[in-house]
Amino acid sequence: MPMRDTEQMWRDFARPIRTAEDYIGSLRGRRLNIFFMGEQVSEPVDHPVIRPSINAMAETYRLAAERPELATARSDIVGSYVNRFLHVPTKPGDLVDKHEMQRELGRRTGTCFQRCVGLDAISTCHSITFDIDAKSETNYHHRFLAFLRRAQTANVVIGGAMTDPKGDRSKPPHQQSDPDLFLRVVRRDEDGIYVSGAKMHQTGAVNSHWLIFMPTMRMTEADRDWSVVGAVRVDAPGLTYIVGRQTNDTRIVDGGGMDAGNAQFAGQEALIVFDNVFVPHQHVFMDGEWQYASTIVERFTTYHRSSYVCKTGLGDVLIGAAAMAADHNGVSNASHIKDKLVEMTHLNETIYSSCMAGAHQAKPMASGAYVNDEMLSNVAKHNVTRFPYEIARLAQDIAGGLIVTMPSEKDLQNNEVGPLIRKFLQGRDGVEVIDRMRILRLIENMTIGRNAVGYLTESLHGAGSPQAQRVQIARAMKVEEKKSLAKKLAGVSERLG
Amino acid sequence: MPMRDTEQMWRDFARPIRTAEDYIGSLRGRRLNIFFMGEQVSEPVDHPVIRPSINAMAETYRLAAERPELATARSDIVGSYVNRFLHVPTKPGDLVDKHEMQRELGRRTGTCFQRCVGLDAISTCHSITFDIDAKSETNYHHRFLAFLRRAQTANVVIGGAMTDPKGDRSKPPHQQSDPDLFLRVVRRDEDGIYVSGAKMHQTGAVNSHWLIFMPTMRMTEADRDWSVVGAVRVDAPGLTYIVGRQTNDTRIVDGGGMDAGNAQFAGQEALIVFDNVFVPHQHVFMDGEWQYASTIVERFTTYHRSSYVCKTGLGDVLIGAAAMAADHNGVSNASHIKDKLVEMTHLNETIYSSCMAGAHQAKPMASGAYVNDEMLSNVAKHNVTRFPYEIARLAQDIAGGLIVTMPSEKDLQNNEVGPLIRKFLQGRDGVEVIDRMRILRLIENMTIGRNAVGYLTESLHGAGSPQAQRVQIARAMKVEEKKSLAKKLAGVSERLG
Amino acid sequence: MPMRDTEQMWRDFARPIRTAEDYIGSLRGRRLNIFFMGEQVSEPVDHPVIRPSINAMAETYRLAAERPELATARSDIVGSYVNRFLHVPTKPGDLVDKHEMQRELGRRTGTCFQRCVGLDAISTCHSITFDIDAKSETNYHHRFLAFLRRAQTANVVIGGAMTDPKGDRSKPPHQQSDPDLFLRVVRRDEDGIYVSGAKMHQTGAVNSHWLIFMPTMRMTEADRDWSVVGAVRVDAPGLTYIVGRQTNDTRIVDGGGMDAGNAQFAGQEALIVFDNVFVPHQHVFMDGEWQYASTIVERFTTYHRSSYVCKTGLGDVLIGAAAMAADHNGVSNASHIKDKLVEMTHLNETIYSSCMAGAHQAKPMASGAYVNDEMLSNVAKHNVTRFPYEIARLAQDIAGGLIVTMPSEKDLQNNEVGPLIRKFLQGRDGVEVIDRMRILRLIENMTIGRNAVGYLTESLHGAGSPQAQRVQIARAMKVEEKKSLAKKLAGVSERLG
Amino acid sequence: MPMRDTEQMWRDFARPIRTAEDYIGSLRGRRLNIFFMGEQVSEPVDHPVIRPSINAMAETYRLAAERPELATARSDIVGSYVNRFLHVPTKPGDLVDKHEMQRELGRRTGTCFQRCVGLDAISTCHSITFDIDAKSETNYHHRFLAFLRRAQTANVVIGGAMTDPKGDRSKPPHQQSDPDLFLRVVRRDEDGIYVSGAKMHQTGAVNSHWLIFMPTMRMTEADRDWSVVGAVRVDAPGLTYIVGRQTNDTRIVDGGGMDAGNAQFAGQEALIVFDNVFVPHQHVFMDGEWQYASTIVERFTTYHRSSYVCKTGLGDVLIGAAAMAADHNGVSNASHIKDKLVEMTHLNETIYSSCMAGAHQAKPMASGAYVNDEMLSNVAKHNVTRFPYEIARLAQDIAGGLIVTMPSEKDLQNNEVGPLIRKFLQGRDGVEVIDRMRILRLIENMTIGRNAVGYLTESLHGAGSPQAQRVQIARAMKVEEKKSLAKKLAGVSERLG
Repeated sequence: MPMRDTEQMWRDFARPIRTAEDYIGSLRGRRLNIFFMGEQVSEPVDHPVIRPSINAMAETYRLAAERPELATARSDIVGSYVNRFLHVPTKPGDLVDKHEMQRELGRRTGTCFQRCVGLDAISTCHSITFDIDAKSETNYHHRFLAFLRRAQTANVVIGGAMTDPKGDRSKPPHQQSDPDLFLRVVRRDEDGIYVSGAKMHQTGAVNSHWLIFMPTMRMTEADRDWSVVGAVRVDAPGLTYIVGRQTNDTRIVDGGGMDAGNAQFAGQEALIVFDNVFVPHQHVFMDGEWQYASTIVERFTTYHRSSYVCKTGLGDVLIGAAAMAADHNGVSNASHIKDKLVEMTHLNETIYSSCMAGAHQAKPMASGAYVNDEMLSNVAKHNVTRFPYEIARLAQDIAGGLIVTMPSEKDLQNNEVGPLIRKFLQGRDGVEVIDRMRILRLIENMTIGRNAVGYLTESLHGAGSPQAQRVQIARAMKVEEKKSLAKKLAGVSERLG
Repeated sequence: MPMRDTEQMWRDFARPIRTAEDYIGSLRGRRLNIFFMGEQVSEPVDHPVIRPSINAMAETYRLAAERPELATARSDIVGSYVNRFLHVPTKPGDLVDKHEMQRELGRRTGTCFQRCVGLDAISTCHSITFDIDAKSETNYHHRFLAFLRRAQTANVVIGGAMTDPKGDRSKPPHQQSDPDLFLRVVRRDEDGIYVSGAKMHQTGAVNSHWLIFMPTMRMTEADRDWSVVGAVRVDAPGLTYIVGRQTNDTRIVDGGGMDAGNAQFAGQEALIVFDNVFVPHQHVFMDGEWQYASTIVERFTTYHRSSYVCKTGLGDVLIGAAAMAADHNGVSNASHIKDKLVEMTHLNETIYSSCMAGAHQAKPMASGAYVNDEMLSNVAKHNVTRFPYEIARLAQDIAGGLIVTMPSEKDLQNNEVGPLIRKFLQGRDGVEVIDRMRILRLIENMTIGRNAVGYLTESLHGAGSPQAQRVQIARAMKVEEKKSLAKKLAGVSERLG
Repeated sequence: MPMRDTEQMWRDFARPIRTAEDYIGSLRGRRLNIFFMGEQVSEPVDHPVIRPSINAMAETYRLAAERPELATARSDIVGSYVNRFLHVPTKPGDLVDKHEMQRELGRRTGTCFQRCVGLDAISTCHSITFDIDAKSETNYHHRFLAFLRRAQTANVVIGGAMTDPKGDRSKPPHQQSDPDLFLRVVRRDEDGIYVSGAKMHQTGAVNSHWLIFMPTMRMTEADRDWSVVGAVRVDAPGLTYIVGRQTNDTRIVDGGGMDAGNAQFAGQEALIVFDNVFVPHQHVFMDGEWQYASTIVERFTTYHRSSYVCKTGLGDVLIGAAAMAADHNGVSNASHIKDKLVEMTHLNETIYSSCMAGAHQAKPMASGAYVNDEMLSNVAKHNVTRFPYEIARLAQDIAGGLIVTMPSEKDLQNNEVGPLIRKFLQGRDGVEVIDRMRILRLIENMTIGRNAVGYLTESLHGAGSPQAQRVQIARAMKVEEKKSLAKKLAGVSERLG
Repeated sequence: MPMRDTEQMWRDFARPIRTAEDYIGSLRGRRLNIFFMGEQVSEPVDHPVIRPSINAMAETYRLAAERPELATARSDIVGSYVNRFLHVPTKPGDLVDKHEMQRELGRRTGTCFQRCVGLDAISTCHSITFDIDAKSETNYHHRFLAFLRRAQTANVVIGGAMTDPKGDRSKPPHQQSDPDLFLRVVRRDEDGIYVSGAKMHQTGAVNSHWLIFMPTMRMTEADRDWSVVGAVRVDAPGLTYIVGRQTNDTRIVDGGGMDAGNAQFAGQEALIVFDNVFVPHQHVFMDGEWQYASTIVERFTTYHRSSYVCKTGLGDVLIGAAAMAADHNGVSNASHIKDKLVEMTHLNETIYSSCMAGAHQAKPMASGAYVNDEMLSNVAKHNVTRFPYEIARLAQDIAGGLIVTMPSEKDLQNNEVGPLIRKFLQGRDGVEVIDRMRILRLIENMTIGRNAVGYLTESLHGAGSPQAQRVQIARAMKVEEKKSLAKKLAGVSERLG
């Protein structure tokens, strides 16, 4: 019998999560229906492939404890400090601080720490529910604030679920041959609604406590049932998680910690299937207001595209690793090496600056929440779809081919070949071969290994593929205004253009 | 007999300049020793090649009148609003507003409006004089504030003169075969000092009222005489100006307004020769403090590299012109055209965001003045050395080959061939051929014509060539800190690196 | 009374042109109707702005005399050696040698020497006339061979005229509001045809002896009158030439030789208006065979896109000039300078290699003529639309800002400021200031001056704008074959795709 | 007791290898000392991780059988047709055909087929042994021809071993703290020599029958013992192989064929340790002639850099896979998709053209062997260090994020989640989900999976890292000649430069 009311749903979160260890503990013993590589995962916390992604998420708690000025913020909703990942930005400085926190977490984990989607989802819900209520008889904003108050108090992880499978991309939801290809309300009763469908490549899904689901694109009037926003517990009945495979994900098992490159941290994405999942009214934040679907997408992506500032933290790690590799090879003074490190830094800081400018120039919405400048956020993300690939290429250039031809840690431990490896992989005097190998494995990890998933491919597609940003830039580029400037200087007076 | 005291020197500026017209009037009748194309220029205001550069400068006055919230700022020094080009930034917002003003002036003029160097020079002098006084018995800051008070009151144009000829770049000033290859003090008397030497490619030199000269690079103790900062009137005895040639500069004369592309506005650079130019003590802001030379250069370039945000205003014009050209050709809906306009915008806004981020994240100095974030300012300028070239290439791509094969305005006016041109250069219905040609000439002007000087080559070399930024990025990149991040994640504990 | 028969038309060319001087002489005394800057040009050979373009063309004769192994070829048509610009390639080696000759002429002139269009036009006509005759009762190939035999014997310059004004680009010729927007047959009589219309930006038009005109795009059946190919004397009655303005074209007049940068050589483009121009049947090579129009365009562009190998010759000059500038500044050993020269070379040689590969892999056509590999020729040209811009940017980077702020030659000659310039523009010891200035002016000339027209904008648009190559690459890319490879390796057996 | 004479050594190869199956059989039962992931590999042919690399090598035999005109060549040494991988090029056409064969093998395998190093090694030995003998009393060329005759007759795989561990890169071999950091002669007796040391990341090492070892860089007179070239059987006593780990190498084991992306084919690199390995005189092709070491490196890299044309075959596969993915998503007509496929093709064909131009313009050496044009070969490889990364980025762009978030094949086979995956990963109508997944896994395989090792990192570092090509381009760029061109056009007559 599923839980029917919100009080009951929140009871398990009565004791607030305070530390990284609390958080990890809070994930244990849930009965999630998780699959990975064809097998049901009984306890993800103990699963060697999944665990590094939990560790990365846990760092969001650790940072809040270690550097509260960076990773917590005072919330008017609860009247006290909360983890910044649960704080709706109400001034530009909140977004600036958010981005600095994201970069720092990227530096600490070298991977995707998975908590930004949820933050950007609640920030979006804050203003959208307010806007809908302002035009309708609805009560979504109040419901949402109540939900958020509980989440802030409990200090839970909220995941955001947006990307529907979409099926035939030329058709709106109601014209799909299978109506489940977009998440939708399949039933309503006095207590709430039931939703079915799926959300794809959801970051940190099984590491969250709650999920907020939102529509993934512009809707039409006939798509009312698909125009739904709500929150569910990650362990709600009817949810199935299929954790995606990542490059080198099993290395941690078959190759040991060194071969993994970054044994401690990794990202996570999953396909979430919703099968008649119940959502009580109190956790429904939109139901049928199709006109707002496109605004939801725009606001969410504006927030989320800037969140990719985290990649500059990964960039810092990779620049550092490349510099170390150069040291180990004894070539750190070669001018072409220095030049490549400068280029990597230049590209990395260009991303950073685009993200930060959009935060500083954030604009308020009716609800009081602030959102990044739309143009700059799109420009920032668009740079993220390009520069990490070049940074990664330069890192591989500096590191040398050994990153893809190197023996494994187990070879190093082997009595026969271990000594040979130590003899022949010797770099500059004074450098331990094992340390040289570790750094090279880290570079492999970030450029062609497990965390390249987050550093490269996710940088390309997360928060919208490159073309999505181009569409948005085209909309925001004020071409008529620019034409006027040209006409004036050229001495053109024609009306036509 | 030269003027010996500062009172006398400022007497001519007793009536403050209020409007663009005032400004232009203020330039008349001065007896400058100016040369252009081998001839002495008696009245630059009436010189057809020089005048467009005066017009561009005049826009800095016009904007202050039209949009005071953007182009003026309240100065504590005089206790009232002054032109923003005379205002030392005392909070990040001042730099943000400065950059918005610079972009707007770029949009209005499509060229270099020449007043930024002076602003960045006074901003630099403010903190440097303060810092020197704090360590020495000197009185530079007081002198400088007095100078600035007068300048703000009179609302004059201050030019900045930095780049020395340098001669053999491997030698410091005191080792040059010709000591004049760096500007230096050649004599001192009770009233002041006498300087000789030259400053190269000085922006807007003959359009200014005053010049501040500063050292161009790190000095050594033996370079004391070359370690000098001061202000002189542009018409001071001993100054000679040789205005540089620009691409297509004489088109305005031989081809008429349309062929010029942007008939109204242009930039200006000159070689300034100093021959025993007297500077009264009150206008000497540093004399011999060689230790501060490198800091001067760093602060000035940090200010000035971000000032290149103006190029995004030129970018706006060029994007608009390219969009117009596409309209005229009837191809504005072609996907590859739209895609190129988006790419141009993306690059332009990336520059903007780098500049703005560095302004928002400005840092205070001891004097109370704020300076842009150093790393971000260098990154911004480095993008300026690349992206305008690609934007220009894309503009030419959209415009078509006609920008370099088109008949002249005089052909259009000719009775025999004029009608042929009108017949065969007809674009989309409803477009006047002359307007089509005007837009194409504007694109020529900005990509391979007179204002390409400012949009391209100056973007490359102004405020330091690309390599100068790379050196600065290398210094600021904190590579040891980044290495630590990598070591931690890779599990490397070695001390060595 | 116009000349009506071909014998008469060729009578003036009875004495073959043998030398560069012969060639220049051959241009004198023709009564062309030429306009430049609104004035009729009585004798282009003596016109200071036009003359450098004649000099460049003359180098094609000089090279044939100096290096016959490179710039002549044995023609089966006349049974002896002819200038290679009049030789239809009948083996891959002919195209290879043609490209080497083009690069060498680029190296000698630093500009567009204008004779490639005609060569590529005759090469196209050779196979097209053959193909038409093979399917029809026509006699075009025989006529064309007769024409070419005379041209080879007389050693004349043949220009190619292809680009029509096009008007509304969404409409075919017969639907244009003005039928003259594409060149067309307006009348036919027993002796020949009469054509009207215009051809735009025709390279070297007034420096040629004959023009071959061809359709510019795919035609439909209703466009029969526009589907015409023929040859006319450049001085045929009814032809008007309007020579286009080029950046800095009048510098040679107002600034002297040094300011011009490359005083001797330049390119030329003109708008040619045809008003009832008579073409005798013997010089008509297609009339009405609309089905062949698109093939003409494809073959011509395949030849002509590879002809842009000439830009690698210009690249050689620019790389050399940049290396000289670095020498003059005493920085030729700086690693970043060397690195930029290597990058310039790498890009330049990449263009060269694309062009050469397409020549070596040329394919024969039915007429026996060989044509470059289509894919590689398009790829080569597409690189030409990109790399010269980057090479130019790097050249400016190495040269320094002085290229756009430098005083004029007349200043250098002036008694007052000349000595100042010599004093302050002194570079490395032993370098004459005037030589330093000359090299900088050459770099200006090629990157933002008169020959930037040919090196940059023409590289972008000549032989088709970038998008034209992309369309062609898309057609030739054999995507279905590539999909099959992927399916096989991925283990996909589906039929659908 | 090791084999001491060459007759004995070749006895095992008496029956020529004729087919791919023969080849695989020939690898069985050898007693190689191979390690992988810390364990000795008893039979590599049956090792699931190693086998795909054997399959790839086997395709070189299959192609020779299927398309002899492409993959065999007539050898004057044996007077009959031999596998092209054993044929020393004696005309430009041989190199052209070699490159076409390499591209085709890239298309068939989607990975590194490992046989080029050996071919480029024998091509190098042919001319070097000839050159040494011409100046010395040595008999190397004769020995080498005898060796090659046997190899051609037996149709064996020859591997090339070049890269020494190098240790401290600032020191020559004889100054290294450990003399074994470069392979060297440790002992000589009447029958032959004994070598010790190691060769790193040797392509296809354990899939070869013979190895030719060569010096890796310029040697000095004191490095005589390190200046050695010779051939050894892969199963010679004293050889140990440590096979390197590759991204996702164990997927084939833990994830099944689909997850592997390309289950059939992969590359291979190994660290080879030489411990007192005996080489009979007949198999020693250089011993002590240190002056030739740098020439060996230059010739080998000139051959081998062009061999990277194989990557265009991989590019074909990846372009095809991306086009398939677009089909599956129903977006193959979107203009931005088509544009990206064109860009990928353009880059791929640019690489191809650079490689081919260098083959067509090959030059003969004294021995009669031809070698690719040095400049073009370096330019080609330099493009290979850049373009595959961009092609891979674009492939990921088209493919979508699913390539890194997709469930595994085992999930698809699972009864509970398999149907969910089939339901929600449905693309365009008519596309099987499993086929969609297969194509996406192939794209993963080539861009961030096992064959990205070969397509990306090996493209960067194989045959020399980017900087090695830049050094070579700098040497070959004839900068003085280019300066002369510039001086001539600029009118500079100075001697100095």
